[in-house]
Amino acid sequence: MLSNKELLESGTQKMEWAKNHMPVLEQIRQEFAAKKPLKGKKIAMALHVEAKTAVLVETLAAGGATVAITGCNPLSTQDDVAQALGNLPGISCFAKYDCSTSEYYEAIDQVLDIAPDITIDDGADLIFKLHKERRDLLPKIVGGCEETTTGIHRLLAMEKEGALEMAVLAVNDAQTKFLFDNRYGTGQSAWDGIMRTTNLLVAGKTVVVGGYGWCGRGIAMRAAGLGAEVVVTEINPVRALEARMDGCRVMPMADAAKIGDIFVTTTGNCDVISGAHFPLMKSGAILANAGHFNVEIDLPGLEKLSSGVKTVRKNIREYTLNGSGKKINVLAEGRLVNLAAGDGHPAEVMDMSFANQALGVRYIAENKLKHGVHKVPAEIDERIALLKLRSMDVEIDRLSDKQKCYTDDWEAGT
Amino acid sequence: MLSNKELLESGTQKMEWAKNHMPVLEQIRQEFAAKKPLKGKKIAMALHVEAKTAVLVETLAAGGATVAITGCNPLSTQDDVAQALGNLPGISCFAKYDCSTSEYYEAIDQVLDIAPDITIDDGADLIFKLHKERRDLLPKIVGGCEETTTGIHRLLAMEKEGALEMAVLAVNDAQTKFLFDNRYGTGQSAWDGIMRTTNLLVAGKTVVVGGYGWCGRGIAMRAAGLGAEVVVTEINPVRALEARMDGCRVMPMADAAKIGDIFVTTTGNCDVISGAHFPLMKSGAILANAGHFNVEIDLPGLEKLSSGVKTVRKNIREYTLNGSGKKINVLAEGRLVNLAAGDGHPAEVMDMSFANQALGVRYIAENKLKHGVHKVPAEIDERIALLKLRSMDVEIDRLSDKQKCYTDDWEAGT
Amino acid sequence: MLSNKELLESGTQKMEWAKNHMPVLEQIRQEFAAKKPLKGKKIAMALHVEAKTAVLVETLAAGGATVAITGCNPLSTQDDVAQALGNLPGISCFAKYDCSTSEYYEAIDQVLDIAPDITIDDGADLIFKLHKERRDLLPKIVGGCEETTTGIHRLLAMEKEGALEMAVLAVNDAQTKFLFDNRYGTGQSAWDGIMRTTNLLVAGKTVVVGGYGWCGRGIAMRAAGLGAEVVVTEINPVRALEARMDGCRVMPMADAAKIGDIFVTTTGNCDVISGAHFPLMKSGAILANAGHFNVEIDLPGLEKLSSGVKTVRKNIREYTLNGSGKKINVLAEGRLVNLAAGDGHPAEVMDMSFANQALGVRYIAENKLKHGVHKVPAEIDERIALLKLRSMDVEIDRLSDKQKCYTDDWEAGT
Amino acid sequence: MLSNKELLESGTQKMEWAKNHMPVLEQIRQEFAAKKPLKGKKIAMALHVEAKTAVLVETLAAGGATVAITGCNPLSTQDDVAQALGNLPGISCFAKYDCSTSEYYEAIDQVLDIAPDITIDDGADLIFKLHKERRDLLPKIVGGCEETTTGIHRLLAMEKEGALEMAVLAVNDAQTKFLFDNRYGTGQSAWDGIMRTTNLLVAGKTVVVGGYGWCGRGIAMRAAGLGAEVVVTEINPVRALEARMDGCRVMPMADAAKIGDIFVTTTGNCDVISGAHFPLMKSGAILANAGHFNVEIDLPGLEKLSSGVKTVRKNIREYTLNGSGKKINVLAEGRLVNLAAGDGHPAEVMDMSFANQALGVRYIAENKLKHGVHKVPAEIDERIALLKLRSMDVEIDRLSDKQKCYTDDWEAGT
Repeated sequence: MLSNKELLESGTQKMEWAKNHMPVLEQIRQEFAAKKPLKGKKIAMALHVEAKTAVLVETLAAGGATVAITGCNPLSTQDDVAQALGNLPGISCFAKYDCSTSEYYEAIDQVLDIAPDITIDDGADLIFKLHKERRDLLPKIVGGCEETTTGIHRLLAMEKEGALEMAVLAVNDAQTKFLFDNRYGTGQSAWDGIMRTTNLLVAGKTVVVGGYGWCGRGIAMRAAGLGAEVVVTEINPVRALEARMDGCRVMPMADAAKIGDIFVTTTGNCDVISGAHFPLMKSGAILANAGHFNVEIDLPGLEKLSSGVKTVRKNIREYTLNGSGKKINVLAEGRLVNLAAGDGHPAEVMDMSFANQALGVRYIAENKLKHGVHKVPAEIDERIALLKLRSMDVEIDRLSDKQKCYTDDWEAGT
Repeated sequence: MLSNKELLESGTQKMEWAKNHMPVLEQIRQEFAAKKPLKGKKIAMALHVEAKTAVLVETLAAGGATVAITGCNPLSTQDDVAQALGNLPGISCFAKYDCSTSEYYEAIDQVLDIAPDITIDDGADLIFKLHKERRDLLPKIVGGCEETTTGIHRLLAMEKEGALEMAVLAVNDAQTKFLFDNRYGTGQSAWDGIMRTTNLLVAGKTVVVGGYGWCGRGIAMRAAGLGAEVVVTEINPVRALEARMDGCRVMPMADAAKIGDIFVTTTGNCDVISGAHFPLMKSGAILANAGHFNVEIDLPGLEKLSSGVKTVRKNIREYTLNGSGKKINVLAEGRLVNLAAGDGHPAEVMDMSFANQALGVRYIAENKLKHGVHKVPAEIDERIALLKLRSMDVEIDRLSDKQKCYTDDWEAGT
Repeated sequence: MLSNKELLESGTQKMEWAKNHMPVLEQIRQEFAAKKPLKGKKIAMALHVEAKTAVLVETLAAGGATVAITGCNPLSTQDDVAQALGNLPGISCFAKYDCSTSEYYEAIDQVLDIAPDITIDDGADLIFKLHKERRDLLPKIVGGCEETTTGIHRLLAMEKEGALEMAVLAVNDAQTKFLFDNRYGTGQSAWDGIMRTTNLLVAGKTVVVGGYGWCGRGIAMRAAGLGAEVVVTEINPVRALEARMDGCRVMPMADAAKIGDIFVTTTGNCDVISGAHFPLMKSGAILANAGHFNVEIDLPGLEKLSSGVKTVRKNIREYTLNGSGKKINVLAEGRLVNLAAGDGHPAEVMDMSFANQALGVRYIAENKLKHGVHKVPAEIDERIALLKLRSMDVEIDRLSDKQKCYTDDWEAGT
Repeated sequence: MLSNKELLESGTQKMEWAKNHMPVLEQIRQEFAAKKPLKGKKIAMALHVEAKTAVLVETLAAGGATVAITGCNPLSTQDDVAQALGNLPGISCFAKYDCSTSEYYEAIDQVLDIAPDITIDDGADLIFKLHKERRDLLPKIVGGCEETTTGIHRLLAMEKEGALEMAVLAVNDAQTKFLFDNRYGTGQSAWDGIMRTTNLLVAGKTVVVGGYGWCGRGIAMRAAGLGAEVVVTEINPVRALEARMDGCRVMPMADAAKIGDIFVTTTGNCDVISGAHFPLMKSGAILANAGHFNVEIDLPGLEKLSSGVKTVRKNIREYTLNGSGKKINVLAEGRLVNLAAGDGHPAEVMDMSFANQALGVRYIAENKLKHGVHKVPAEIDERIALLKLRSMDVEIDRLSDKQKCYTDDWEAGT
């Protein structure tokens, strides 16, 4: 166990490293520090509390906001970063690694106690709590930002039922977010988590990816890049066809279960791997989840089928199946493997995602949005992309006047 | 020169082969033959006249339609297929390989002379002619289908100016079209065309891809798969970032011009490679176009800079630059390299694109659509994807009731 | 049918194009023209007679040799090139496309009638004929060059039995030959041949590659690069493991037969696909061979199982199996698909292979080699690699003196 | 700091996990346990002391040997495994993480004090010590095994000078070792180490790989698979050409230095990145080494150019260059990044490498080998490959009698 001072030092160092690799957010931080666009605003946040998130929090604070933050997943908090973050002026941090469910929700209440003007969610737990138990706080709120596909799904379901009583910016759906964070970010960080946790070879293995959305195709692409044979399961026929054209095998999970060496779920839905699948698996199968909630692998179902469970390596629980004696290895308790068994997404990817958060918060603060789910304005997206390219020393072409005309001219033909 | 009989035989054989590899369209053809949903309809078409298109034409005729067809590009017609197609009952074909511009437009007029109920375009030349010179035919028309990105661009520009006086189904924008035809289809067929035309090695070369849309990323993906170093030029910063994250180098064309061995344009815009770029190139550079019109490589500009031009291999014109004496090789006169120097997209890809055309035509015939550009209904997309998967013996998962509930349930949290 | 004059023109054009893309051989040709190292030598050749080979023949003639050449495969000769080649001074060409077996061997005799000092073989047919029927010519011969893996196997078998009565340089085994020609050359040209012949999509297909030698891994690598799922069959366990680690599925042909869409054989052995396999296949399966001889697919066996055979597209023969009625499509009569249904290897690859031939012939002429199979000297290999890099504008590092010492110093440790 | 008991527990758990993923070695261990082929033999070992190595040591002990082991790199020892290993009967372990150079060599002496019959080296430090300072022990020694390319180079240099006074088996050169361990093992584990140490994105970066040997091409292949643009530096022209044909850019390090984001050296030589290169680099460049010794990146040279050095994240030292103020980040002090900043190679790969060690040791024990460097017998290689395939449930083909004949028959022709 590290002392608080050691935690502070380690957390500060991590934040410094992240900051050096988040040039877009740095640019925004400088603007915010100069213009204080969030002056007087209170922001309640529930995000994965690790170094990159801390850089976002600092950016918001630099803009004049008071921030209270907790985690959005019981296993994704890094205690050293939480310590360093809570130590900064204007910032309160309530996150703790490996907290219980009651502690988890208690911390969400503590964050909301700030009486926020703006919320930032990753999975919509803050907004859900607000609508269910803290409705007194709703009137003051001008809007919220939501980080992840799963959260957007929840919010759209709420909106559809007429139950959403605030404006929410769908940060996840910005191009500079989902095209990069979900694909290249999850693609790399899920494998980083799996490799460091297992020390096993990916090459020559059969990897089963549950879902071929942006996260799923990132994971599949990197699995192939690491030498695996990739199997995809899907419920959407167009995505299934794309997976097949990308060289993957496509089949129902009931068939994939029999041949997979490593399984990674990424659908946003429950029971992707469930009861009937476990007994079909090869002994020694590795199960990991890269979707937001820990419901994709049906662990209660697995437990019922098992005669024993034990930790066989850090973050690996081995279940022994009744009867067959087969071993099933579950990583990080079925929680987001890249965060619960790694350091989360690479800094450069979160740079873009969190630039959307920072500019999204300002947009909410400066505009009066109606209740409902809103898109991130295209200008924000384009500005982030351009800043990012500049930070990478990449230049691109611009349309000439003739080309602009050509684009608009429908009379030019064969 | 082949005799008409030889042409007929060769064209019929090609159509048979294509038909055997277009199982989705075959399924639709059987339905059409049984139910005659297009009975009494007259259809005017301007598409690349080769074997796969012929299978679409047969399908429409099987549905009861009378069809008149011509080409949509002076170099993409295969005369043997044209011969075989024109020989079938209920079908008139006016396409000819290597026709002059006046012959090209004359054939369009001949096709319109049928007084169509429905049009099918690839590049919107029919619709343009209708609006400019054959306005008398407009009132009778119930709608049209457009096959390609470029055509959709033209039509949206028309619609924006209030100049579009008919309903058009944006077949190109169906998922089962652009995600496959534009990406996997163009990706493969452009390289098939380049390789067979040049007999040069792709591995170890620097390939410059102009544009990272769906066609561009297909071409880039396959260039990498063939061992090339891939350079992408773009005007859209988000796409530029994607290209970079996919491992490509990204730079303006003025820089790419200096290092490229093979250039492939695919932007839908003009002057992607133009005046200033040619003198920067390495002697021996190969230029090909995979965009709809032959304006992406500025050939008049190249001619002005050249002291001589000669054919150095079938479909390769070598320009010798004034002064430097550098040689620039242009494939297929800057027209669609996969069609003008090859057999076009693989049959399995056109199977999906043309299934959208066939079902789109029926949808137009059976629904009264307003003037303007319309989307292909999602049901058509999904049905085609499922038929295609079935033809490939691929099964996929279905949502369980519990999963359906989970998707709709915004209360389930961490 | 083209006239001789048209053939001459077409062949000359092809040779010119090839020459422009074979810079290493061009460098050697200039040296040969200046120093005439082959003055007075007579060279008998049996190679695939197409444009790149013609550039080699010209190079040898430029060095002062008199050359007689025929084909090494009944379907790989391009008649226009043969015409153009035979038209050059000092060169006789006896090759003809689609010749009968008797014509094939007759031409070999005609070539040997030159009474060669040196032979160049691709498959060892000349050497075999010399040892069996033209033994009178053996004493005059100072050595031969062999181009391909299959030929080397034959020659080593001869040497082992004490039956090889001349010196042979194993050109195939030079690094600048087999690492490039067999891998990148076959990898690309086999797919070029298959794609142009079938116009089918590779993406989304299951491609079965018979053998994971240098040719096989080139074909597998490119199949994956074109979007296929790749299955490899092998008899060598180490290669099988490599294939698996490269992401391929590995299984016996009896299993692969059931799931393959396209089969490509490349083992150098017979019956890779044979009797029992055909009835297991999916109807519509495509079979191609990229190995030297047409024995890898057991066509006599297939014929016995078939009720009918017909040509369904140029270079595609469709066999209908008895009973099941399944269709099996064989490309180019099971002969080298890249040559019999394409233009053979890309010029840049043959540049290196034939540079080895040209320098190998000079080495034989200038050194008195003992009977047996000899390696190409390392200096030739290295020189070719350096010339090739220079032609591609690629520079590389050189060892510093300190690094040279370090390499030799076994005392430097941890 | 963990207690000895905690170390023991952790180390034992790691060994158990590794053992479960090393099925070939497990098979050998069972044989050894039954037949005791190493009964009475004393074995001195200097290998990276982590879990997979421990499984090898147990296997040797199961065969009847008494084993003394220390590390072969100051930063690659895992103290928990060392603790668990030393606790087993018949095994003494002297390795310690982060030991000083004097401690390092002292431990080597302690291991040699066992008076070994057989040595096992990774880098030849034991053998070097034996020849320099412990010559009295040489007469008793029947042979040694060497694990790595670098060690083989040292031993061949010794042999060339007539300085090698014992038999050594070149385990590194077995196909089932270098084709897998060096390529797929280093390929994955180097990136595992770099990703977990930096938490940076590989996609979109320029990765410079120093050397395109088996390790280098593994690292390059995985870098591409993770989305990087790959630059290769080489001194060997054939390898440079291969790198280029594999889609990499190839250039001298002096050019690569300017554009690289991440550098990985893997040449086995010194000064791959040295004095003149550092000032050319982009600020923030990441430098890692995957070659055996820490001489590939010239750290003394870097220090001389720097005004300051500090640790910015675990295993990352940031050097600030004089004058420019540029930051250069060196991972794991330039030592093997996969071991010093990770868990080393995946277990399945070491399964094959160490199966060669185990069977190699038995081969040495059972045969009287002459002084000099010997190859691992082909039978061992093939047996390991077959055992491995079986453990992966992969079956392969066998030659039929007809195929065996065909292979030997040089008379079958065109």
